[in-house]
Amino acid sequence: MTEESSAAPSATARVPATRSDRGKTLESVIVEEPLEIRIAQGEDETRIAITMRTPGNDLDLAVGFLLSEGLISGKDDVIKARVCGDRSLTPRQRANVVIVEVSPDLPPPARVLDRRFTISSACGVCGSTSLSDLHDRGISRVVVSPRTFEEEVALIESLKPNQRLFAKTGALHGVALVDERAVLRFVREDVGRHNAVDKAIGAALLEGIDPAGWSLLLSGRVGFEIVAKAVVAGISTIVAVSAPTSLAIELASEFGVRVIGFAREGRGTQYC
Amino acid sequence: MTEESSAAPSATARVPATRSDRGKTLESVIVEEPLEIRIAQGEDETRIAITMRTPGNDLDLAVGFLLSEGLISGKDDVIKARVCGDRSLTPRQRANVVIVEVSPDLPPPARVLDRRFTISSACGVCGSTSLSDLHDRGISRVVVSPRTFEEEVALIESLKPNQRLFAKTGALHGVALVDERAVLRFVREDVGRHNAVDKAIGAALLEGIDPAGWSLLLSGRVGFEIVAKAVVAGISTIVAVSAPTSLAIELASEFGVRVIGFAREGRGTQYC
Repeated sequence: MTEESSAAPSATARVPATRSDRGKTLESVIVEEPLEIRIAQGEDETRIAITMRTPGNDLDLAVGFLLSEGLISGKDDVIKARVCGDRSLTPRQRANVVIVEVSPDLPPPARVLDRRFTISSACGVCGSTSLSDLHDRGISRVVVSPRTFEEEVALIESLKPNQRLFAKTGALHGVALVDERAVLRFVREDVGRHNAVDKAIGAALLEGIDPAGWSLLLSGRVGFEIVAKAVVAGISTIVAVSAPTSLAIELASEFGVRVIGFAREGRGTQYC
Repeated sequence: MTEESSAAPSATARVPATRSDRGKTLESVIVEEPLEIRIAQGEDETRIAITMRTPGNDLDLAVGFLLSEGLISGKDDVIKARVCGDRSLTPRQRANVVIVEVSPDLPPPARVLDRRFTISSACGVCGSTSLSDLHDRGISRVVVSPRTFEEEVALIESLKPNQRLFAKTGALHGVALVDERAVLRFVREDVGRHNAVDKAIGAALLEGIDPAGWSLLLSGRVGFEIVAKAVVAGISTIVAVSAPTSLAIELASEFGVRVIGFAREGRGTQYC
């Protein structure tokens, strides 16, 4: 079902640098490259988005992104996800294009995107518009987490030891899904928080696993888009090292997602 | 030239929460709301983008964004920036729409956006495409900073005491421009790093101030888009608390921008 390109670029690079306390050195930095996400449906190919991301797990990212945007709604909608094979492109360019072949039964992506654009431009945007978008997509409340507040807070301790690229570079967002037995699954890292969440959720989708009732661990802040992604995936709880925003809390309350912020050193703050 | 709406929403909100160590409480959280940015040119109005932002300095944000995107190139292109006055919208909706009236001499925004889309889809995306976009816009190398590495590193200490909203909420990006006399100007905060940079650069533009040769202080990481915004504004140095990405360093080297990361406690790492 999935197929990684062998020319996949690496997630970190060594660059020359000067440190004020030590002089000349080589430093590991996070690689950032644009990823173009396309949908192929029958003969048609449509460019959906370009996102700046850290290479790695790109098929997960593309599929997770399409799920978040309502362009697919589950594994059955995906025929195949693959890296672009166009030989007229350089290897670097090819590695930055992912094509998701979707079922011919889905509505064409252009129609889905057009409709959403029309809805939001009709009435002026605000938080309420953003919230009702998800209701319009027929998404319902998530299942209640089986864990207590304290159990959820404790989960965050297991995230950092798994942030492999963060350890190497000191700057990267980490995300993990945690199943009902409190086991970390699908740890993903990216220069963008939204990408890291898409990678984790997309990976679960491609493996045919439904994370309903699971928790999402996050090394950073919780904005509206992060909660929207969690709601679409059926995630019950978000546990984050930093704070949620007002609109994130509003959306989470609407769909029954528990949001815990400032989860550090055994403490946390629950907002919903 | 500018006009803020009196119904401007506030940047923070108090919400009920539960702290694991203290029980029920009221917490200050960052407000996040969508902002729609429109260009008005003669009789035509075009929606350019919707960004999730923290309310405040919205006209600066809109103008800074349009500069970054190449839709305007200086103060003379802006006739007026204003909050939407459409009485058919609710006050909350109106406050989330900014309209920038631009000179009739500019090419229509749809044509600028179309052309860019066509260029990048023609050849497949990669870091080089992203870099050449800026060359295509006729942007040249920035002027060299008059400050030493050590002087630049020391500037970061002045950022945090000025992050008013961060102090209140513990989670928000802060940005400032620093002029040639090492004076902090245009301190701006936002839930999004890119927005905070657009707010600072847009504020300078609206005041008719050219920040060429200035420094940009940043509380977070330095990605490609941040450097692109700095290059367009003519900023000489970026001093950030966290790390730059590979593509950020590549772009900065190309245009002569000095990037200093991990600027903390008197130390820092220079990448270009």
